[in-house]
Amino acid sequence: MNSIRFRNQPTLHSFAAIGGQKEGEGNFGRFFDRIEPDPALGEKNWERAESRLQAETLRLAAAKGLLKIEELDCIVAGDLINQCTGSTFAARGTDVPFLGVYGACSTMAESLLAAGMLVDGGYVRRAAAVTSSHFSTAERQFRFPLSYGGQRTPTAQWTCTASGAAILGRHAAAPYLVGGCIGRICDLGVTDTTNMGAAMAPAAADTISRYLHDTGTAPGQYDAIITGDLGQIGSPLLMELLSGQGIDIADVHFDCGAKIFDPDTQDTHAGGSGCGCSASLLCGYFLPKLAAGEMRRVLFCATGALLSAMSSQQGESIPGICHLVEITGEANGKGGNA
Amino acid sequence: MNSIRFRNQPTLHSFAAIGGQKEGEGNFGRFFDRIEPDPALGEKNWERAESRLQAETLRLAAAKGLLKIEELDCIVAGDLINQCTGSTFAARGTDVPFLGVYGACSTMAESLLAAGMLVDGGYVRRAAAVTSSHFSTAERQFRFPLSYGGQRTPTAQWTCTASGAAILGRHAAAPYLVGGCIGRICDLGVTDTTNMGAAMAPAAADTISRYLHDTGTAPGQYDAIITGDLGQIGSPLLMELLSGQGIDIADVHFDCGAKIFDPDTQDTHAGGSGCGCSASLLCGYFLPKLAAGEMRRVLFCATGALLSAMSSQQGESIPGICHLVEITGEANGKGGNA
Repeated sequence: MNSIRFRNQPTLHSFAAIGGQKEGEGNFGRFFDRIEPDPALGEKNWERAESRLQAETLRLAAAKGLLKIEELDCIVAGDLINQCTGSTFAARGTDVPFLGVYGACSTMAESLLAAGMLVDGGYVRRAAAVTSSHFSTAERQFRFPLSYGGQRTPTAQWTCTASGAAILGRHAAAPYLVGGCIGRICDLGVTDTTNMGAAMAPAAADTISRYLHDTGTAPGQYDAIITGDLGQIGSPLLMELLSGQGIDIADVHFDCGAKIFDPDTQDTHAGGSGCGCSASLLCGYFLPKLAAGEMRRVLFCATGALLSAMSSQQGESIPGICHLVEITGEANGKGGNA
Repeated sequence: MNSIRFRNQPTLHSFAAIGGQKEGEGNFGRFFDRIEPDPALGEKNWERAESRLQAETLRLAAAKGLLKIEELDCIVAGDLINQCTGSTFAARGTDVPFLGVYGACSTMAESLLAAGMLVDGGYVRRAAAVTSSHFSTAERQFRFPLSYGGQRTPTAQWTCTASGAAILGRHAAAPYLVGGCIGRICDLGVTDTTNMGAAMAPAAADTISRYLHDTGTAPGQYDAIITGDLGQIGSPLLMELLSGQGIDIADVHFDCGAKIFDPDTQDTHAGGSGCGCSASLLCGYFLPKLAAGEMRRVLFCATGALLSAMSSQQGESIPGICHLVEITGEANGKGGNA
């Protein structure tokens, strides 16, 4: 039994998503709270831009919940930039206790797990889970300088310029965090850094199958099983790996990477990626649907590729991880007055 | 009230510390479980060496507690290498759920806080907190290639090649995790990357003063207030900042960075640093003393400098953070049978 239950079911008090221009032009553009037309967000470099994006998303999530940042007891955050400076520089100046996490693109689910424990265990009243990614910070760090104009392979995914933030608390309305599953590191030996979907699919299969087993539930009991950013290549691999275990999620599967962009009009090859990809669709699209009663129960399974530019240069394969949280739109009698 | 209390007081079931040759020749060499004479640990690059160091320390901590790695329910780990590959590559192949954290050199305290919540909240039975640093991985990532032979400034600290691991559980003997305090990001504008002690001292002062205030305790009630790696420069700054608030910790203060090396015989300038510095002294020196009843109550306040090589190149100042855990050697009637 690896899975976690939240006895007091923390409420997802408020949430927000901000995206860049390309994300605004994608399939889910209208669900973002705001689209930033300026990729630099008025800042002098991409890294500062990402920090501003994350800080503004958190501020917006708090404001939508009629909270000031200072009313938070903890910010749980992480991102893809070396030493997570995207998040630490975003939180600098807030005076709110800060827990930095690193799970690559699985960060939103990891942040929600940690923030969920903080609130559910009664350690704090309110905690924020937030993450971000930025196309230009990721390109220069993991791939090539933008000005080099490198060709992208067909299996490559486009790092989203996006951020999602959710504020967890108690004594409030749906949606609620029911439980989750901490991911295990899975490495099947993929070394192609332009094919992250393949590197992450085994981890997604491992976590989803463990959670379904532990909870004794079937895919059909969920309105959606949301994966992070497996994209067009990783998504069918996940289906294949799960079907080998007799699990069929085809009817309820939604991969944020595969769906966020429009493949016909946006040149994103295998889809979107980055911490902000699944975080923004969770906070912009799914959580509002759960709050409105349009969805009842989802699994949010964010996936991460745990490589660095150096590990690949050293010939290492790419370990993947997938953290999972279950979110419900229905109070069970405990969630509403925990 | 920012501080956290662990109602069930998780026990620090077992722990281990491994150090490199220089750490073995330092003031606390005899307290390490093992000294590794080969800085490469038989591996082909420094990064693999650090992962092996961390993996072996965790394995040793488990073995000392008569546990196999597979009996752990979660590993909480982080390190200084880009994208925390030191930790993820160490945990790869273990099949144990993994939570990656990033707190720079504050990581051991952050890992203990997270692992403490996992166990105290009843989410898992056993969780490991582990971290590491390696002189050669840190030098090439944050400073210069070793072969460049750069001069070190008088304020510079020497990154320890060391790892510490602790396994938390329930139903066992002292020492216990009593509570803690999640750090806030403090940035007073220090931009000198060769003076980390100055950058981190304000965060240490902030966390220690908040915890003493929240718990209504005085420094004299602790056998030791252990800071991470403020070194020779940061330690007096911490005293000065705290004395400005009327807090005097001089009699009980122990800075791992200032103490780990012998300034007379080891050319380490302002002392030691790195995640493994405070983690190894905690797991090799303090926890055994607490277990043996030679110490009763300590605060472990690991400090981190949240910079990256790029953030400094971009002219950013260095934010600091300090996470704190209180550890006791005495059962309070709850700790022993939670």
